[in-house]
Amino acid sequence: MIIDGKKCSEEILENLRKDISEYKEKTGKVPGLAVIILGNNAASKIYVKSKIRACEKTGILSREIILDENISEEELINEIEKLNNDKNINGILVQLPLPSHINEKKICEAISVKKDVDGFKAENLGKIMLGDDDGFISCTPQGIIYLIDQLNMDLHGKNVVVVGRSNIVGKPVASLLINKGATTTVCNSRTKDLAGILKKADIIVIAIGKAKFLTKDMVKEGAVVIDVGINRVDGKIYGDVDYENVKDIVSHITPVPGGVGPMTIAMLLKNTVKAFCKEELVNGN
Amino acid sequence: MIIDGKKCSEEILENLRKDISEYKEKTGKVPGLAVIILGNNAASKIYVKSKIRACEKTGILSREIILDENISEEELINEIEKLNNDKNINGILVQLPLPSHINEKKICEAISVKKDVDGFKAENLGKIMLGDDDGFISCTPQGIIYLIDQLNMDLHGKNVVVVGRSNIVGKPVASLLINKGATTTVCNSRTKDLAGILKKADIIVIAIGKAKFLTKDMVKEGAVVIDVGINRVDGKIYGDVDYENVKDIVSHITPVPGGVGPMTIAMLLKNTVKAFCKEELVNGN
Repeated sequence: MIIDGKKCSEEILENLRKDISEYKEKTGKVPGLAVIILGNNAASKIYVKSKIRACEKTGILSREIILDENISEEELINEIEKLNNDKNINGILVQLPLPSHINEKKICEAISVKKDVDGFKAENLGKIMLGDDDGFISCTPQGIIYLIDQLNMDLHGKNVVVVGRSNIVGKPVASLLINKGATTTVCNSRTKDLAGILKKADIIVIAIGKAKFLTKDMVKEGAVVIDVGINRVDGKIYGDVDYENVKDIVSHITPVPGGVGPMTIAMLLKNTVKAFCKEELVNGN
Repeated sequence: MIIDGKKCSEEILENLRKDISEYKEKTGKVPGLAVIILGNNAASKIYVKSKIRACEKTGILSREIILDENISEEELINEIEKLNNDKNINGILVQLPLPSHINEKKICEAISVKKDVDGFKAENLGKIMLGDDDGFISCTPQGIIYLIDQLNMDLHGKNVVVVGRSNIVGKPVASLLINKGATTTVCNSRTKDLAGILKKADIIVIAIGKAKFLTKDMVKEGAVVIDVGINRVDGKIYGDVDYENVKDIVSHITPVPGGVGPMTIAMLLKNTVKAFCKEELVNGN
């Protein structure tokens, strides 16, 4: 009943570890991930640390690049250009949020599409829409679909409701669900009769950043609930779902923490390995 | 009550004509659109002809390139490359469908993103998802939104149902509607209780290619209906909507022909002029 994202992600990491060890034997090389972090944001540091720890577990070479938060946009783009041309780096990640003097769009555009393992670039999002698995699917949406796939449900004819329409979760995950044949509804904060819409959902994906927003009365008995929220309240972490009450009526639910979060990191590493394999296929010996 | 796409598109073309005449005076240049057509498909020829006629009306230089339907993929890509490098051409369109020996994806990828006025490339679709109006929005979705915009409705809190999930209509138009704040549901042929879902829609966009599929009993009184279907039955053209019966209960409806169809061509020309202006801004004198 509980969808164990932590366990699932550990299995993925273990499989990646085996693959990478084989690649290393064959080619003498391992995938490389560069993580750029600006300044001293405590939450960012925690996220980066867990990404680097996951790299270590799998054998991916990680390179943490800590830059001054006052760095100019041009200098940051120069750093990215260097990584674009660095043969030991297959994936480049710029930890968000960025300071306000830096244009996030420009930074995203500076990263080579071949190394955009976050899947934030327009070309990779467009490939999601097209159902073209040649690109990099952004990590959280990919992790969500991976967990849903574990349930072996045929999504054709299923009602899926996505709450939240961000560029990094709501919109791309909706695209993936549409491609899987689900009748997909995307809601936002101004949706009318949200509770009524949710009550008809076979699957709910919620990513709005409001602690315990989704209550038991909004959920159909036997539904699947995927909780993408990470909300810190009085030092504790809550999802967007009122987990304690909702868990009793659903068929499956992701906990927070230990649900979607670890899957996001696993998919980041999966994308990095994919980038490595594509590069080796094209330019390897 | 009838959304007159023909009239609306003619106004757009007239405005483009004025703009182009001004550009010509200033720069001595006019936008250019190349249309590649393979073989002798009668329907394709009709579509191309109306595109070229619209170019003539506005002052866009059009170049029709008729190729043998047995042309190899490589030769076709060479033709596209030539147009990519041709300074007099701002937009490149390859009329679909293509013969089965030609890979549509490869052909689409061969067109420069700067000249992808059809808006079919992944990067342009991704920009739709991101709400980045820097790219080219595919023509039919853009035309649909243009018509909806004429109604001056605030889409926040509105229920919009898109029936059909194609790459050229359903998915991109859903993305545009999500960005406008609509609660957006994408349905397909296996959606359960489609009639019930449609009955709650404030706006219906239908693009499934089934003549007169949408009947009066599926539509809420006062709803807006956008009919994207073009179905030939016994020599007559029908939309996806049972227009004669539905028109009496809706607030607004597009006819077929004369609704979305002419808007698609107008948006193609609008995209071509946009491509021209961007090019002039970067490389003009």
